[in-house]
Amino acid sequence: MPVGTLATVKGVDIERVRQTGAQMVLSNTYHLALRPGERVIEQLGGLHRFMGWDGPILTDSGGFQVFSLAQNTKVTEQSAVFRSHLDGNLFELSPERAVEIQEALGSDVAMVLDHVVALPNSIEAIRDATDRSVRWAARARDVHRRADQVQFGIVQGGLDTGLRVECAEQLTKLDFPGYAIGGLSVGEAPAEMYRIIEATAPVLPTDRPRYLMGVGRPEDLIEAIRRGIDLFDCVMPTRNGRNALAFTDAGSLRLRNKQFELDDQPLEPNCPCLACKHSRGYLRHLFLANEMLGPVLVSHHNLTYYQRLMADARKAIEEHRFDAFAAEKHKGWSLVSTTNTPTTAPLSSGGL
Amino acid sequence: MPVGTLATVKGVDIERVRQTGAQMVLSNTYHLALRPGERVIEQLGGLHRFMGWDGPILTDSGGFQVFSLAQNTKVTEQSAVFRSHLDGNLFELSPERAVEIQEALGSDVAMVLDHVVALPNSIEAIRDATDRSVRWAARARDVHRRADQVQFGIVQGGLDTGLRVECAEQLTKLDFPGYAIGGLSVGEAPAEMYRIIEATAPVLPTDRPRYLMGVGRPEDLIEAIRRGIDLFDCVMPTRNGRNALAFTDAGSLRLRNKQFELDDQPLEPNCPCLACKHSRGYLRHLFLANEMLGPVLVSHHNLTYYQRLMADARKAIEEHRFDAFAAEKHKGWSLVSTTNTPTTAPLSSGGL
Repeated sequence: MPVGTLATVKGVDIERVRQTGAQMVLSNTYHLALRPGERVIEQLGGLHRFMGWDGPILTDSGGFQVFSLAQNTKVTEQSAVFRSHLDGNLFELSPERAVEIQEALGSDVAMVLDHVVALPNSIEAIRDATDRSVRWAARARDVHRRADQVQFGIVQGGLDTGLRVECAEQLTKLDFPGYAIGGLSVGEAPAEMYRIIEATAPVLPTDRPRYLMGVGRPEDLIEAIRRGIDLFDCVMPTRNGRNALAFTDAGSLRLRNKQFELDDQPLEPNCPCLACKHSRGYLRHLFLANEMLGPVLVSHHNLTYYQRLMADARKAIEEHRFDAFAAEKHKGWSLVSTTNTPTTAPLSSGGL
Repeated sequence: MPVGTLATVKGVDIERVRQTGAQMVLSNTYHLALRPGERVIEQLGGLHRFMGWDGPILTDSGGFQVFSLAQNTKVTEQSAVFRSHLDGNLFELSPERAVEIQEALGSDVAMVLDHVVALPNSIEAIRDATDRSVRWAARARDVHRRADQVQFGIVQGGLDTGLRVECAEQLTKLDFPGYAIGGLSVGEAPAEMYRIIEATAPVLPTDRPRYLMGVGRPEDLIEAIRRGIDLFDCVMPTRNGRNALAFTDAGSLRLRNKQFELDDQPLEPNCPCLACKHSRGYLRHLFLANEMLGPVLVSHHNLTYYQRLMADARKAIEEHRFDAFAAEKHKGWSLVSTTNTPTTAPLSSGGL
C-alpha cells in the first residue's frame, strides 16, 4: 500500500497512484485527526471521496504515531494522552476514540489501537504493553459498529518470540478478519525482524490477511513474503523518491551523483512509470535545480517499482518458483547497496 | 505557452501539461545555460527529448533575465556581462552567444537577444537600448544557421509609442518569421501596456505571429488579443497555483481561506483538470498541510484554465463574437478581484 499520510500520497496525484498498479492505499488516523480533523473529512463525504480513491483504504490506529511523533505521551489503561507534534495541543487517544475516528473517516480496514514501546526495552515493559494491546483490541472490537468497515488486530511483543506467539494466539481468539504484525522496523537488525515474522506468522489463521506494518526495503518485503506476509505499507518509495534515490533491480541509484549527468538511460529498462520516459541525466538535473518534478517523478517510479515487485512475487508464488525469484532479486540488489534506509541496518547475506 | 523555465513546467509532468490543451511550451535560455548547461542538454538529445515534449518549444534569449535576475550587469555594444544569480560566476551573453545556446538546445522558435531596461527611464536610455536591440537582432539573424529553427525579433521602446513604431518598422525590414513585443509587464499600469500594444501591433506584418512576452493576467490576455496578439507566455498559472490561488471565470480563489474548509464544490464547474476532481475543501487541506499535491493540482488547474480561455477566445474570434465574449469574461472576473499579480496594478474598468 502506498502511504497517503494526510490523504495524499506525497507528490503523486491519485490517478497516477492507481497507474502504479496499487490496489489499496494507507492513510494515517493520527495525522488526519489533527489536520483537517475527521469531522471535516466526514462532512466532505468521507476519506474515499476526499482523496478521490475508489479502491480500498486502510487506516492505521495512531498507535505508532503516538509512540514516534507525539510529545509527552502518557499511557494509562484507559488511553494515551499526548501533545500534538504540530502545536503542542493536548490530545487523548483511547481504543474507542481510534474506532470513532476511523469510522468517521470511512476507511475499509481500520486498525485497532495498540501500545507501541521503544526497542530495546525491558521484558516487563514489553509484556505490559503487549498485554494492554490485547485488552485494547478487545475494547476496540466491542465498540466497532460500521458494517462496511473491518478491523484488523495488531500483534505486539517486541523481539520476544514467546510474547509474540502468545499475543497472536490471544488476538486470534478475538476473531479479527485480518491481523497485523506491528512494532517492527524500529531500529532492529533485519535478521531480528525476520526471526519475529517467522515465529509469529504460523500462529495466525491462514484464511486471514497478514499485514506487516511499516516495512520496508525491497529485500525486507521479499523476506517477509517468504515468511507468510501478504500486505505491507511503507513510506520508503515516496520518501526516498523525494530524496533522489531510485529503486531498481540492480540496486538503488542516487540521482544527484555526477555519474548520471550525461546518462541517457532510463532508471530501469521497460519500467512503465513517468520517470522512465526521461533520461537519468534529466532526473539528475531536476534534483540539482530543486525542481518539484524530480520528487514527483521518482516517487512515481519507486511506487511503480514496489508494485511491480509485489506483482512479480505473486506470480512467482503461483508458479511455484518463489525461491528462485527471491534469489534473483537479491542478486541484483547486491550490485549496489540500498543503504538509505531509515529503519534498518544494511542487510548482510548471513541475515537471510 | 506554459513556462518550463528549467526544462520543466513546475510541478506538472509533461503528459499532464499536454492534457491542459497546451500546444507549445516556453523554456529559458539564461536558466538552462547556467543549469545544466546547453551542452548537457545537447548531448542528451536536445531540449525536446530532455523534457519529453514533442510539440514546439520557444526559447527566450535571456535578455529579460539579464535585466531582471543577473547581478552587476554591464551592457556594451558587444554584449551583456553579468554575474549569475546562482553562484556569482561571471557570464557574457552576446547576440551571437544567445543564438549558439538556442541552437544547441534545439528549440523550434529562438528569440533574438534584446536589451531590456527598467521603466520608468529616460527617453535617451530607452532609445539607446531600443536601437541596440535592433542592431543585436540583425547580428543574431546573420549568425543563425539551424534550418529547423526560426527566429523571432523583439520590439522594444518602453512606453513611448514613437520608439515602439520605429523599432517595429526596423525589425520588419529584417524580415523575421515572427515578432514579439517585449519589455512590458514590468510594473506599468495595464492601460499603459494596452496603449503600447495598440500602437505596435498594427505596424507588424499580419501574416506573422505576434507574441506578447511575459503577460499576464487573464484580463490582460483578452485585452491583448483584442489588440492583435497571438501568442503569450506567463508564469502566473503555475506561480499562483503554487501559492494556492486558483483562476476561475468568477474571479480567483485564495484556497487557504477558512471559507473553503467545508466547500464540497470543485474550483470550477465542468473543468476537466485534475484539481477539479476534488473539492475545494480537499485542496485547502493540502495547502494548510504543506502537501506538494496542492501546488501540483492547482498549477494543473490554472494551466487548464488559461488554455481553455485561449481556446474559447479563438472560437469567439472565428464566430465574430469576440467583443461579447470579452465582456462576459470581464464581468465574471470582476466578481472577485484578481489582485495577486506580480507585475501590474488592479485593472480599472476605465483602463479598457
